[in-house]
Amino acid sequence: MSELVREPRAPYVAVIGDGDPRGPDAHRLLEWAEEIGLELARAGATVVTGGLGGVMRAASRGARGGGGQTIGILPGADPSEANEFVSIPIATGLGVVRNLVVVTSADAVIAVGGRHGTISEIGLALRMGRNVVALSSWRVESDHRLGGPRVHRARDPREAAHQALRLAGEGPSQSGLGP
Amino acid sequence: MSELVREPRAPYVAVIGDGDPRGPDAHRLLEWAEEIGLELARAGATVVTGGLGGVMRAASRGARGGGGQTIGILPGADPSEANEFVSIPIATGLGVVRNLVVVTSADAVIAVGGRHGTISEIGLALRMGRNVVALSSWRVESDHRLGGPRVHRARDPREAAHQALRLAGEGPSQSGLGP
Amino acid sequence: MSELVREPRAPYVAVIGDGDPRGPDAHRLLEWAEEIGLELARAGATVVTGGLGGVMRAASRGARGGGGQTIGILPGADPSEANEFVSIPIATGLGVVRNLVVVTSADAVIAVGGRHGTISEIGLALRMGRNVVALSSWRVESDHRLGGPRVHRARDPREAAHQALRLAGEGPSQSGLGP
Amino acid sequence: MSELVREPRAPYVAVIGDGDPRGPDAHRLLEWAEEIGLELARAGATVVTGGLGGVMRAASRGARGGGGQTIGILPGADPSEANEFVSIPIATGLGVVRNLVVVTSADAVIAVGGRHGTISEIGLALRMGRNVVALSSWRVESDHRLGGPRVHRARDPREAAHQALRLAGEGPSQSGLGP
Repeated sequence: MSELVREPRAPYVAVIGDGDPRGPDAHRLLEWAEEIGLELARAGATVVTGGLGGVMRAASRGARGGGGQTIGILPGADPSEANEFVSIPIATGLGVVRNLVVVTSADAVIAVGGRHGTISEIGLALRMGRNVVALSSWRVESDHRLGGPRVHRARDPREAAHQALRLAGEGPSQSGLGP
Repeated sequence: MSELVREPRAPYVAVIGDGDPRGPDAHRLLEWAEEIGLELARAGATVVTGGLGGVMRAASRGARGGGGQTIGILPGADPSEANEFVSIPIATGLGVVRNLVVVTSADAVIAVGGRHGTISEIGLALRMGRNVVALSSWRVESDHRLGGPRVHRARDPREAAHQALRLAGEGPSQSGLGP
Repeated sequence: MSELVREPRAPYVAVIGDGDPRGPDAHRLLEWAEEIGLELARAGATVVTGGLGGVMRAASRGARGGGGQTIGILPGADPSEANEFVSIPIATGLGVVRNLVVVTSADAVIAVGGRHGTISEIGLALRMGRNVVALSSWRVESDHRLGGPRVHRARDPREAAHQALRLAGEGPSQSGLGP
Repeated sequence: MSELVREPRAPYVAVIGDGDPRGPDAHRLLEWAEEIGLELARAGATVVTGGLGGVMRAASRGARGGGGQTIGILPGADPSEANEFVSIPIATGLGVVRNLVVVTSADAVIAVGGRHGTISEIGLALRMGRNVVALSSWRVESDHRLGGPRVHRARDPREAAHQALRLAGEGPSQSGLGP
């Protein structure tokens, strides 16, 4: 075959959050994740998640409803663990370390609610130069003035999706990165 | 949207080998990798590689020529490092650890030539229950009689592709796995 | 030899922060890290760091001055990259992923200043059930009420060391952990 | 304190093998691992293992009997999972990826028997430039002529220990390394 002319790649946006949200906010968080997935897909973005349940499944469901492609970065070695809305399962065998891949494979990250797994992904995203948009999630601020990626706050799913798409288009932020 | 009925996933086959083959065999190894990619794509498989040059690029090129989907599991954080025949780049940020993802995300693995990175992927594939087909690559045998996955040897690219497709269909081998 | 009766293990406390602090606070952060290392060693704790420069080196230097043992979890494959105050270098080859080992190998974590690498370690510590004491570092709070480990704030190095020693003694916090 | 003059670090030698050997060879493999640990400790080396049972425990037991220091690189997050002969437990939380740390932290590696986890460690050792000495373990040979680290074969535990000590003294082999 002749050489391909590479087209500009569609942006990848990761949606992270609780795999099994509980409590009074659970239903709302899942609705938001689904709406975010739908908005991202309509804008032509690929949605990346951790491939399991809860927020990951809701975001993937929304994206598939919008005609989008969904990548699921699974912690285990069995691709059939992916939820049914993942179009491209990636079984990693990495356990906790898979969290690094979820955020690094994306151009920007949206956190919807979330517990301790989610804060680990937010921290890793910042480490890898990815901006994060938080919707009812974690507040993360340095005591020092730092350049580079940071955690932005959104008020609703539509705003979260569009902030993330804008940040994804800016590319990774290199400043402030180091060991 | 209504719930999806999940279709059977196409098999994923990883093709591993040298990112910059040299010496008298280099040209032949690249031709073989391209032919393997083509055979796999024609059979409906998705080709997984490490996303960079040499054997990874040749296998991806063959697969795209056969109309297939190609996943590139990159060691770095920049998806634009993927070769131009990768349709789905996954930037991992994992460095050496990305080798685990290359083989775990696949249902079977084909090694074409290769040096020390390739033997690490072969070992990790066996650890994760994935069978390996070796074409002019590494010979790996236990001094003991073990069940579970093993390294099979192929004589030509066509045989390698078809052995791998058959092994991929059998699913992961769990026996013999442990820390 | 006869079987050992295992003695209670000394607590391990990780000290994390910038490998090359700059700006007006740099000198103070290094002094604090050294004082924290000294306090921890005097209390019988083993100090774990990422093994390189800046805050890692200062904390190790303090600990050695206090007669303590220092473990350096290095990102690279060469143990000689460890600073001269590391008594037990662990070359991991993990790159960014080494941050997970720094915090998981410890019973509690102290963050002194720090940039994007440090927030990734704080997030991973919480994910692994380790409490974090922050001294002029990151503020990390959930929008939701969560149990489990969290980021405590200290006002000075002595308080940071003693908070961490107390938290280390309580053992890992399992609640709130998940993918 | 005044600056340290760094003393030459004692060599680190990893001993890898089955965590639960069975079959007719099991007893012999454990005896060999213990003898290897003893020989290494008598020569002043630090013994690194995966910190769990079987060959890991036997090698650590031998090393402690010889007055040596033993490092246990654990897959999980709980240091109390280390066997009772580990003097320095490192809980990594890495799961399978901990195999990379076991071999990278060492200057040379000895494989005693072993199944699929062991071949993954052998492959990773070669990838990281570490030579491997195999005692009744895996045969690993390239179909091509390669420089760099390789798998040496020993006939008895004493020979294995002394080969590994010699190879450890030569330092890591860089040639042949790459993605």
